[in-house]
Amino acid sequence: MITSFHPPQRTLMGPGPSDVSPRVLSALARPTIGHLDPLFVQMMDEVKSLLQYAFQTKNTLTIPVSAPASAGMETCFVNLIEAGDTVIVCQNGVFGLRMQENVERCGAKAVLVQDDWGRACDPQKLEDALKANPDARFVAFVHAETSTGAITDAKTMCDIAHRYDCLTIVDAVTSLAGNPLYVDDWGMDAVYSGTQKCLSCIPGLSPVSFNNAAVEHIKQRKTNVQSWFLDLNLVMGYWGKGAKRAYHHTAPVNALYALHESLLMLKEEGLNQAWDRHQIHHQALKAGLDALGLDLVVPESERLPQLNAVRIPDGVNDAQVRAILLQDYQLEIGAGLGVMAGKVWRIGLMGYACRKDNVLKCVSALAEVLNRVQAPVAHKQTMAATLAAYGE
Amino acid sequence: MITSFHPPQRTLMGPGPSDVSPRVLSALARPTIGHLDPLFVQMMDEVKSLLQYAFQTKNTLTIPVSAPASAGMETCFVNLIEAGDTVIVCQNGVFGLRMQENVERCGAKAVLVQDDWGRACDPQKLEDALKANPDARFVAFVHAETSTGAITDAKTMCDIAHRYDCLTIVDAVTSLAGNPLYVDDWGMDAVYSGTQKCLSCIPGLSPVSFNNAAVEHIKQRKTNVQSWFLDLNLVMGYWGKGAKRAYHHTAPVNALYALHESLLMLKEEGLNQAWDRHQIHHQALKAGLDALGLDLVVPESERLPQLNAVRIPDGVNDAQVRAILLQDYQLEIGAGLGVMAGKVWRIGLMGYACRKDNVLKCVSALAEVLNRVQAPVAHKQTMAATLAAYGE
Repeated sequence: MITSFHPPQRTLMGPGPSDVSPRVLSALARPTIGHLDPLFVQMMDEVKSLLQYAFQTKNTLTIPVSAPASAGMETCFVNLIEAGDTVIVCQNGVFGLRMQENVERCGAKAVLVQDDWGRACDPQKLEDALKANPDARFVAFVHAETSTGAITDAKTMCDIAHRYDCLTIVDAVTSLAGNPLYVDDWGMDAVYSGTQKCLSCIPGLSPVSFNNAAVEHIKQRKTNVQSWFLDLNLVMGYWGKGAKRAYHHTAPVNALYALHESLLMLKEEGLNQAWDRHQIHHQALKAGLDALGLDLVVPESERLPQLNAVRIPDGVNDAQVRAILLQDYQLEIGAGLGVMAGKVWRIGLMGYACRKDNVLKCVSALAEVLNRVQAPVAHKQTMAATLAAYGE
Repeated sequence: MITSFHPPQRTLMGPGPSDVSPRVLSALARPTIGHLDPLFVQMMDEVKSLLQYAFQTKNTLTIPVSAPASAGMETCFVNLIEAGDTVIVCQNGVFGLRMQENVERCGAKAVLVQDDWGRACDPQKLEDALKANPDARFVAFVHAETSTGAITDAKTMCDIAHRYDCLTIVDAVTSLAGNPLYVDDWGMDAVYSGTQKCLSCIPGLSPVSFNNAAVEHIKQRKTNVQSWFLDLNLVMGYWGKGAKRAYHHTAPVNALYALHESLLMLKEEGLNQAWDRHQIHHQALKAGLDALGLDLVVPESERLPQLNAVRIPDGVNDAQVRAILLQDYQLEIGAGLGVMAGKVWRIGLMGYACRKDNVLKCVSALAEVLNRVQAPVAHKQTMAATLAAYGE
């Protein structure tokens, strides 16, 4: 017998979805209006302008794709890449591998430049690959690897790519609103993100932005984009400026209310303040983890504040700890992915979830559960260390 | 200065999105939980089982695609079709043309079998095309053409396709929950729908169902599916039975709460009762339109109850009437699409919007506005005729 589903109130400190602000949930539930309604079209224009702020770009083609971030990734690849192209894909985790998949499904050749999981992409390796592959016209990399918590120096990577006459495709799924990201200043030609990380919004949409060079490239394709749904030549007609819109697909109206509200909250807080907030709570979390004797996988200089990959201590059962945290504390932290499965926990501090009460809850719960399962840790000192990081 | 967006309370009687039930909006706004949370996984299983009921199918692969119906359409085509295939596409409106686009973007050949806009697809023409194209292995057609309001005899079309050893791909975007649809009994091999029509749910998801023959075909493809996001070989791992899920993409958690609730409402009402309801209110709407002297485009035997294409009287300004209805009555009706642009209005009676109060509001508002803009009609007689259709 199926009845209405009433989810519990979890605290989401995994790799995403992260906690959604009550303001956003409330916007989400407002009455649905038509996707061609003049008031909705006006709201779409506001979403575009707020996204430009979040991405720090003047790109006209800055829109949310009506599907999750993996579709945003695909939007970048299927629109820019044609069969026979060569694409340098820098890979240091799960999402670089997914980029490779995308390239190959476009009938193009992916040249993989690999770095260790948990490390940034090495700009020197990129430059070497570009020298070795003079036919490459695209460079793709992940700014903030959600699978490991490593950040890559996006500006340097874009500079190098441009020196070799390549367009850049950048994954900013976890970085948007969580750490500094300047799409225009850093020269990202195409970038995609998600709504379920540092934007404090529900999962299901993928903000993307394309500069003029990318748009020109798309307009001059020799072949049709292989996806009708993601073909930006058609999507641009729908998200174009002003009241005259060409019907393409039915926009996810309520999800866009939510995104509008979350972007507005970001604007109210200010990007710099949001970036600082992620850093502050990351430092406190780190102090607590240190006191628990837990190590972060990523070296300090390459570490994301919003995604903390923590090495699981020997003898501790990964799944058991996560299950207790979920059942007894309503606290979700993430498992490891790929080669890190079973070896790390991923603790997210993203958007609305990135708060002092959550940091204290997480550190305190981890201390208690580790004590419970076998690994004795000093609870009192842990909390003192965490609070000290807040200057208390 | 951008502020929170507060949409008005419209009555949505266009081609979709249609009115969303308050129960569904309330479910939508429940707290987000993780997309791999055991409780969420359990809810996903319930969504699958409720979708099987709505589609009248036992197909295991019955899931909502995490994107609008155009992505559901694309899911069917990119998974089933390979370059070089021949596909018969029956076309009697906008969405058949979109099917053709999909086929061609798969590198396959589309043989277009055309019928007039506003008419059903002619099974005899399909049979002739199959005789003339013995290499065809797929037949695609639209069950309920949202652009015109015509219904096609899906059972007969599927029977013919199977006699010629073809798999069928059926668009049931507007038919699901609005008029009889038996995926198993009628032999649909792949079918896709949307949530924003007769399910009374928000736009943004696309329920699809594939039978064993279709799944076998997908498993035996020679080439990779060109879309990573829509590749059912990967999506199946995520929506597979039980607790062990492979991460593919982050599901649109809150949208799935909404779909769960809307499907539960459908189950509570009963499919037959929902189909009857659409028929009853369609008859009343038709009585009112008759009394206003407005004609339906589609002949009675090929007419959908939930989408009524009404010929705009000579001398009446299409856009003006719709604008007044929206401004003064908060009532949205749809414009014509394609060859019918400017020539018809599309009045939807879908899902939660398919109610007596909406029929009366719509007929009454149309009568008043037509009087206002030039075309004198008798308001009192119109309402009497509409009420008489309800037996009053």
